[in-house]
Amino acid sequence: MADTSSRTKARQPRGFVDRSPEDIRATEKMTAAIREVFELYGFEPADQPLIEYTDALGKFLPDQDRPNEGVFSFQDDDEQWLSLRYDLTAPLARYVAENFERLPKPYRSYRAGWVFRNEKPGPGRFRQFMQFDADTVGTPGVAADAEMAMMMADVMEALGIKRGDYVIRVNNRKVLDGVLEAIGLGGDENAGRRLTVLRAIDKLDKFGPEGVRLLLGPGRWDGGKIGEGDFTKGAGLDEESISKLMIIYGGSAIEEALFGIVDGKVTIVSDIPDDRRNGWQSVLEAWNAAGLLFQFQGPPSANPSLQNLMFLVDVCANTEVGRNGIGELLSILSLVRAAGYNEDRIQISHSVVRGLEYYTGPVYEAELLAEIPNEEGIIVRFGSVGGGGRYDGLVSRFRGEPVLATGFSIGVSRLMTALKNLGKLDISDVIAPVVVLVMDKDTESLGRYQKMVAKLRQAGIRAEMYLGGAGMKAQLKYADRRGSPCAVIQGGDERAKGEVQIKDLIEGKRLSEEITDNVAWREGRPAQVTVAEGELVEAVRRILDAQARDRSLAK
Amino acid sequence: MADTSSRTKARQPRGFVDRSPEDIRATEKMTAAIREVFELYGFEPADQPLIEYTDALGKFLPDQDRPNEGVFSFQDDDEQWLSLRYDLTAPLARYVAENFERLPKPYRSYRAGWVFRNEKPGPGRFRQFMQFDADTVGTPGVAADAEMAMMMADVMEALGIKRGDYVIRVNNRKVLDGVLEAIGLGGDENAGRRLTVLRAIDKLDKFGPEGVRLLLGPGRWDGGKIGEGDFTKGAGLDEESISKLMIIYGGSAIEEALFGIVDGKVTIVSDIPDDRRNGWQSVLEAWNAAGLLFQFQGPPSANPSLQNLMFLVDVCANTEVGRNGIGELLSILSLVRAAGYNEDRIQISHSVVRGLEYYTGPVYEAELLAEIPNEEGIIVRFGSVGGGGRYDGLVSRFRGEPVLATGFSIGVSRLMTALKNLGKLDISDVIAPVVVLVMDKDTESLGRYQKMVAKLRQAGIRAEMYLGGAGMKAQLKYADRRGSPCAVIQGGDERAKGEVQIKDLIEGKRLSEEITDNVAWREGRPAQVTVAEGELVEAVRRILDAQARDRSLAK
Repeated sequence: MADTSSRTKARQPRGFVDRSPEDIRATEKMTAAIREVFELYGFEPADQPLIEYTDALGKFLPDQDRPNEGVFSFQDDDEQWLSLRYDLTAPLARYVAENFERLPKPYRSYRAGWVFRNEKPGPGRFRQFMQFDADTVGTPGVAADAEMAMMMADVMEALGIKRGDYVIRVNNRKVLDGVLEAIGLGGDENAGRRLTVLRAIDKLDKFGPEGVRLLLGPGRWDGGKIGEGDFTKGAGLDEESISKLMIIYGGSAIEEALFGIVDGKVTIVSDIPDDRRNGWQSVLEAWNAAGLLFQFQGPPSANPSLQNLMFLVDVCANTEVGRNGIGELLSILSLVRAAGYNEDRIQISHSVVRGLEYYTGPVYEAELLAEIPNEEGIIVRFGSVGGGGRYDGLVSRFRGEPVLATGFSIGVSRLMTALKNLGKLDISDVIAPVVVLVMDKDTESLGRYQKMVAKLRQAGIRAEMYLGGAGMKAQLKYADRRGSPCAVIQGGDERAKGEVQIKDLIEGKRLSEEITDNVAWREGRPAQVTVAEGELVEAVRRILDAQARDRSLAK
Repeated sequence: MADTSSRTKARQPRGFVDRSPEDIRATEKMTAAIREVFELYGFEPADQPLIEYTDALGKFLPDQDRPNEGVFSFQDDDEQWLSLRYDLTAPLARYVAENFERLPKPYRSYRAGWVFRNEKPGPGRFRQFMQFDADTVGTPGVAADAEMAMMMADVMEALGIKRGDYVIRVNNRKVLDGVLEAIGLGGDENAGRRLTVLRAIDKLDKFGPEGVRLLLGPGRWDGGKIGEGDFTKGAGLDEESISKLMIIYGGSAIEEALFGIVDGKVTIVSDIPDDRRNGWQSVLEAWNAAGLLFQFQGPPSANPSLQNLMFLVDVCANTEVGRNGIGELLSILSLVRAAGYNEDRIQISHSVVRGLEYYTGPVYEAELLAEIPNEEGIIVRFGSVGGGGRYDGLVSRFRGEPVLATGFSIGVSRLMTALKNLGKLDISDVIAPVVVLVMDKDTESLGRYQKMVAKLRQAGIRAEMYLGGAGMKAQLKYADRRGSPCAVIQGGDERAKGEVQIKDLIEGKRLSEEITDNVAWREGRPAQVTVAEGELVEAVRRILDAQARDRSLAK
């Protein structure tokens, strides 16, 4: 197998990555903290396999017997199509539908796992990535959505993100439905166009307002000019509808507030047309009834949820579905405020859409406000690290009866990148192993080194015997590459005296750097000690303790 | 989507399973304990993606451009074949080859993850399962193999399996090569037949000695009779060769020992032919040189490693590769004995083969000796829970230079099943959430219940507000199904008095069972208490503490 002619090239398919030990440890630490919050909220761990029937994932192309190209698919030996899951929600829906009778309902569960997208990879876009989800299935009211928003906030704080550095934004897909109905896209016959509109809006981050305008209208050429690159067909909306949608979702600032707080009550302060005034008035009454108005102090601009709700009323309170959506948002707001989650943690936000087509009601998103370097090193507001919403159709699909559900998904590697950049994932407490060098290679000597290693391990100290074939210098280099705290050496001379030498590799490095760099020399520990063989463990422990003290002083 | 005509059936492909919360928690607990041992030994976490190029996995069919049917494969959009990994070793080899220069060598790493086999599923045989591996790559001597065997032993004990209930068995693939050479199957031209023999021997558990005899000889019909079921072509060995192999690998007992310990020295005590005597004599000398003989006390039957080595000498010491293999086993034995791992933990065992074709030297296996119920509830010796060996060709395949490696793999769900049956995976410290019932459904009341839940959670107590649509009785049933320790109730009356009622669901159940069963009544705690709303957390805590005491008394 080793001749060069038949040698296989070691390479990875595009969009897949190996993870470093640091990333794995950081992910472990992060997911453990998230899990603790989910458990506290009464959620139970769940796990579905990575492969499902394509039809169970709802991933056949419309009117075809061929799976959607966005999922990795293959035929089983009985010719049925299987696919790798593209998210954790569709398999959950299959599981709940299959085990409906025996599950306690509402069914609260959480799950972490790999999902796959057969898409063109790009910077920060992978074909395999990890999601961490929590879902409540079989829950009729929006209390479950409110709980999801609060849980996301608690997750952020459990990860060390301080209040003010994140916000949970809540919106309602029904509001979008209301808007679409208002521009004449209601009814079953427009389902396809509504989906095109949703996908167009969701591309705002990627293509900017101009690109989204094209996708809402005639369509968009990938190359930027007509005839250049691939063409994506648009939703074919007229200019007025496009403008209306762009005002809501196009990232424009909310129109100057036309209301103020007078005598502790939110009041319409401007001269506006009656239909607008009436819409707002009904919201204000609902807020009064829900006892929410007391929350608002200061100018309206300090109350984004209020501003956003007013905005929503303006754009869709003239449709029933829109009013329902606004009503649900009011209920969610009451519940989270009652539990003490204020404007600094959970806000109504009119521009949250979420890309997935299966959402049917409230949608929510966790946004990091902190400005940190992105993958290209440019300082940016980090943005969304997870989100979700209500998906009442996913389980019903299998059962022919309504099964109401809500849940959210955290993008694990994205959140981990953010936390690392914020300095919130400290894994410096993981110490590399002590390396026992091999000075003599006869079986008897190897046995002796092995025994030293065994003693260190028994004392709970990470340790290894050097298992390569190299000489002493290369062995020390190896220990250095591993980041070892110290190396243990016993050659013939030490052996004769019943001693071992221990090199403090961290202190040794520091001393030599200080000397090289001409930095003011400070009194350090000895970079090397010789002790009796029986004192090996104690001597190593002293070095590890001293290094730990240095690290904590350095912080 | 919810009309019955287009309803999708919720079902799983064969060979895939959903995991229960108990299994997930038990797996977490088990893998954490294993990880701790691996870390102590200086191994670092690693993780490769689940999808690799089919050729990088070495999974094209011989002389064809089509992937082996045993792996799940699909073509990428550039027509290249991708496959789901079938183990964790092949991706590790790809990773090491691709990053060879920048990795410290020897490269010690561990990894847990899902692997996939596109095979016919059966009881206990899944198409997706989890492995937990540790590997050392770039290590020339057998000290690394010795370390693997010791680490497996430490893993077993870290999991609470007591000494005597497990054993690590070590053999050497070179010994099999020696045996095959001795029966005329040496040389490159017989590589295919050697593989057939290996696969036949590996089927011993599945088909028994008679089935293996057929696979070594003319071939085997699945149905048990000629012409019934599928036919598997055999290795075509003659009767004498088959008998020789069956003596070694057929599960027969080792021939009555012909040596004894005289004056503390292993001595040949029977009258046997010279060639046999000479072979043994050389082993005894090697053992003497390695200082191993002092290990043996009592009759030979109490020294299985010695017996097994003698047996191996008998069957293959007349080939060079066989002698090399025996020599490596001797070195491994010296090293593990020097580190204090005796016959009760690590043994040489002539019958260990391991199924994978890529092993080139020492192979090892962790066997549970405890007799516990299998999946059908029959008490059996549980057998192998993991194993591995030296695979010097896997990385070399990519690099055209020797890269020596050894590692083992733990079958996670198999080991977990064993540990659960042994009562070694206690997860009774995971307490189900306290359920706060919803007696009034107006937003204000919901807010109040939500606040109670928030207070319990802030105190670190798992808690949830009931989020379904049912009445009080169904809510209590839900809490019972969840296994909740207690339920919190506040209706209008309690609300007016500023009180809450707390039902102890565990004690309540016990009391009602005792009364129903007419069991001698013992004085219990009250099954229900009413406290001031401000004392909710303390009262719940008292109930949880009392239940914890009951559980520890019951043990």
